[in-house]
Amino acid sequence: MIRQEELHVSTSGRGTYDLSDRIQQLVASSGIVTGLCHIFIRHTSASLMLCENADPSVMVDLESFMQRQVPDGDSMFTHTAEGPDDMSAHVRSILTQSDLNIPVTNGRCALGTWQGVYLWEHRLASHERKVTVTMTGE
Amino acid sequence: MIRQEELHVSTSGRGTYDLSDRIQQLVASSGIVTGLCHIFIRHTSASLMLCENADPSVMVDLESFMQRQVPDGDSMFTHTAEGPDDMSAHVRSILTQSDLNIPVTNGRCALGTWQGVYLWEHRLASHERKVTVTMTGE
Amino acid sequence: MIRQEELHVSTSGRGTYDLSDRIQQLVASSGIVTGLCHIFIRHTSASLMLCENADPSVMVDLESFMQRQVPDGDSMFTHTAEGPDDMSAHVRSILTQSDLNIPVTNGRCALGTWQGVYLWEHRLASHERKVTVTMTGE
Repeated sequence: MIRQEELHVSTSGRGTYDLSDRIQQLVASSGIVTGLCHIFIRHTSASLMLCENADPSVMVDLESFMQRQVPDGDSMFTHTAEGPDDMSAHVRSILTQSDLNIPVTNGRCALGTWQGVYLWEHRLASHERKVTVTMTGE
Repeated sequence: MIRQEELHVSTSGRGTYDLSDRIQQLVASSGIVTGLCHIFIRHTSASLMLCENADPSVMVDLESFMQRQVPDGDSMFTHTAEGPDDMSAHVRSILTQSDLNIPVTNGRCALGTWQGVYLWEHRLASHERKVTVTMTGE
Repeated sequence: MIRQEELHVSTSGRGTYDLSDRIQQLVASSGIVTGLCHIFIRHTSASLMLCENADPSVMVDLESFMQRQVPDGDSMFTHTAEGPDDMSAHVRSILTQSDLNIPVTNGRCALGTWQGVYLWEHRLASHERKVTVTMTGE
């Protein structure tokens, strides 16, 4: 059995957006009991992440880390047509994930207790992001 | 055909743990000849890695690299409830993989000659880690 | 339905190699309309990447970033048997992807408008690289 759905995520600029509930709802609707749920972002300046879901300070620290590691407006970057956050957003995407695959067990994504599924918007401005979810199993 | 198994991995603190043999045994037991083997870690402070399996100095150097790149106790981090290796473990997990998908060919994971499957424990203390393995194919 | 193919990629040393057309051709030949296309590189010193496909300066900047982040010949590295780009190539592989999974929709990989599939050769010398492509769906 294969089910494929598209999620639309409206971001209000750089930051993380919790998709866990929407993903679990798609899996529940699919009727799949055992299998895999694949999540794919169709962009190169936003990415996906499995991360600690309890303490918001984790997201603050991840953002601080990335801003130090991949500074906006780094003088090394030549791809700057869309501004100082253009190339840094591509690098951040390369260092994280464009696709995640999560086991489905007993009709739900078998996330660990502290795992959430997040979209990480790397651009400073708001964007409309498309995420394709493909669920396979029986 | 779908088979799903859970592996338990007892770590003795920070370091890499070779899962290759246990994964190959699960694939052999599944009876799947052609397909995919998906490996998923249900934690956010340990991760998975495909890495060179011959020279132990590679693991030493990877550890050195991560310790320089993501220092424990970095003054930038605010998420420190569980100690100086708490937030660094989350960042290391984000920079590596929570799930791996490996082709199954002729009844075995079709790893390259020098590729091994490793769990990378990022916390300093011992932990019990759960890994879900989902094998699909025919 | 499962189809598995092996791609051979001859690299002329460090740099990115666009696999998008070859992957789309394999998907078209498979006859799969809805499903997933999994791409796996059987090496630990070259990796896979989904990246912006329009402006070549993105690749130049990614290379500059990696050379700063993971310098060849870093004095920290002890795994140097094959030269100054030996261990740096392993670290670059760890920080990027060894496998990608892309949704198949209407008989094609459903890449975003600006997404391309690249092999990233991290060694300085030419290499023959093997990539296993596994397509599943209906």
